[in-house]
Amino acid sequence: MRNRKKLCLMILAAMGAVPSFAQPRRGGSTEPGANVRSPEVLPDHRVTFRIYAPKAAEVSVSGDWVTQGRGTAGKLEKDDQGVWSVTIGPLVPDFYNYTFTVDGVRTVDPKNGLIKPGNNSTSSMVEVPGDEEAFESTQPVPHGEVRIAWYHSSVLDTMRSIRVYTPPEYDRGSARYPVFYLLHGSGDDDAGWSTVGRAGFILDNLLSAKKIKPMVVVMPNGSMPRGSGTEAQDLFARELLENVMPYVEKHYRVLTDRDHRALAGLSMGGGQTLRVAPAHPELFAYVGVFSSGVRQEMTGDFEKRSAAFFENPEKTNKMMKVFWIGVGEKDQGANPGAKNTAQILKAHGVKYEFHESEGGHTWINWRHYLNDYAQLLFR
Amino acid sequence: MRNRKKLCLMILAAMGAVPSFAQPRRGGSTEPGANVRSPEVLPDHRVTFRIYAPKAAEVSVSGDWVTQGRGTAGKLEKDDQGVWSVTIGPLVPDFYNYTFTVDGVRTVDPKNGLIKPGNNSTSSMVEVPGDEEAFESTQPVPHGEVRIAWYHSSVLDTMRSIRVYTPPEYDRGSARYPVFYLLHGSGDDDAGWSTVGRAGFILDNLLSAKKIKPMVVVMPNGSMPRGSGTEAQDLFARELLENVMPYVEKHYRVLTDRDHRALAGLSMGGGQTLRVAPAHPELFAYVGVFSSGVRQEMTGDFEKRSAAFFENPEKTNKMMKVFWIGVGEKDQGANPGAKNTAQILKAHGVKYEFHESEGGHTWINWRHYLNDYAQLLFR
Repeated sequence: MRNRKKLCLMILAAMGAVPSFAQPRRGGSTEPGANVRSPEVLPDHRVTFRIYAPKAAEVSVSGDWVTQGRGTAGKLEKDDQGVWSVTIGPLVPDFYNYTFTVDGVRTVDPKNGLIKPGNNSTSSMVEVPGDEEAFESTQPVPHGEVRIAWYHSSVLDTMRSIRVYTPPEYDRGSARYPVFYLLHGSGDDDAGWSTVGRAGFILDNLLSAKKIKPMVVVMPNGSMPRGSGTEAQDLFARELLENVMPYVEKHYRVLTDRDHRALAGLSMGGGQTLRVAPAHPELFAYVGVFSSGVRQEMTGDFEKRSAAFFENPEKTNKMMKVFWIGVGEKDQGANPGAKNTAQILKAHGVKYEFHESEGGHTWINWRHYLNDYAQLLFR
Repeated sequence: MRNRKKLCLMILAAMGAVPSFAQPRRGGSTEPGANVRSPEVLPDHRVTFRIYAPKAAEVSVSGDWVTQGRGTAGKLEKDDQGVWSVTIGPLVPDFYNYTFTVDGVRTVDPKNGLIKPGNNSTSSMVEVPGDEEAFESTQPVPHGEVRIAWYHSSVLDTMRSIRVYTPPEYDRGSARYPVFYLLHGSGDDDAGWSTVGRAGFILDNLLSAKKIKPMVVVMPNGSMPRGSGTEAQDLFARELLENVMPYVEKHYRVLTDRDHRALAGLSMGGGQTLRVAPAHPELFAYVGVFSSGVRQEMTGDFEKRSAAFFENPEKTNKMMKVFWIGVGEKDQGANPGAKNTAQILKAHGVKYEFHESEGGHTWINWRHYLNDYAQLLFR
């Protein structure tokens, strides 16, 4: 029966009558594994993951729910068709990154088009819908644009891209807007915040609820093509100050005084933020450090580089509107540095806000931090 | 030795001294497979693909070079570290989509951040640089923006996204521009043309060489959430006419007469183009059909639906500036339909251009077709 169907399809194909390309592919393919559905989000917030891997000996799935302390990794079990599956959860409604590991090979879900892009950190994503993630989901509210723009970097002598969020009203008038520079972490690029980071959606929802002022958000590429550690951070600082900011101020209707400029970054981007903002208190009135900080042994170096920030705390406190630090309680890598940073600011009498959340070093936390921090800006 | 190094790293980590998150990850990881490099493009245009899969029995790589008739799929060989590799080519300089198959499981390259997104068709991409791909590469010329915008679809009762290319000068004046609606194929979404399709770069390069007029290019999402075959095509036609075009004409500075409106699509999008444009000759003066066409047995149906187009060929020929059909000689699925479409137009005395290229049903051809077709628009 199956062979007869195949033969029939082949004859039709030879007649040019089955151009699958001309219509969306749907349903009944005879290719093994073609009809596997993954992920499947169940009404009770559990998620079933499936992958066709008839020759594999071991398949597991892990994702942000594990790092965030909301669940455990899962071992998949194989059925007699070679399809592996496992059901995880229920999970708190959110967007979760995940990957399969098939016999030791990290694999995105071949059936899932929702991809977290990244430099060496590609994974699949699943949305578990619900009240807890309404702040970051695609709502029927006015939406701003996320624009991909290219500029020539004089620092790196190459073309570089940035993503720029403009608020819904941007093209309907001639107003100038405050500008918020938002930096990603290691392994990501300028696409991170507007894709897995859901930045545009978070801002659209906040704007619609009148919880923030309209602003332009600039998401540059913080991964440097050369240099490591502090060398790369200094290179990025130059890129930001000498190329990104001048390009933005020339091409977008943004305000150019410090009271209308914010900077924040996550992880590596938090390190970049701490390298740039306190060394240049004349540039940014708002500073956000997400899941990052100054390591204990770098305290002296940080204080030295931030002399302009610490020499007159009273003046600094008048100039700085917000210095916000957020970190997860389970973020063993970043938590001590974040606390040390707060300690340094305290010792110098500089005002700050310290926010310790649940969970670890995850996009789940970073989306929440953006949601919290954005509401403090440009008041 | 290896264990001692690991222990040392663990102690440092416990001291908070190795927060890899705070700096870009580079070089010497002890994780097996961590330092595998893939793809590696060699100076002679050969490409080495590598993947760490110590437990796999069989690994192969295939990509657009195969479908385009420029090379063969490769079987990888395993070294004693569990790293599989093969060198392919030399390849004609171009962007190539590819995937590994690891023991029957389709796998993107875990070491490659350049991803072709897609609904069920995710793959990795590699750029082989050279003269032949200069038209589609990221050149140091003025770049337009690709904007991601969201609108509420009354036809589908959901939020939908479109990508809109605006030329470099767009935000510096108040001019209105001709508008080109560009449709993707099955398995892709509104991201297709601006990512794997390189649309923005192709237009930037053409503009810089003064080979085209500045224009706005609108790339909607042609994949429908319901319906199959012609039902889905009619649903998309409504989406385009009732939602996408009114949204674009309200939110972007585009000209709204037929002489300044073009439509083109590839594969499924070519089918959508043939469903919309000849039925509405009052809307589009420029029509492009890439790797698609009317199947023989659908000829009568097409003629009936396109009555407005065929009833007065002399009038149609005055109205239509360009009707362009392109298809690959090896594209067994689409080639007969494309030729049949040309035959129908010829039989009715309607002018058209037919361009048969080398190769098959590939993004390689579609990027070239866009490059050719765009130069004919709005003259």
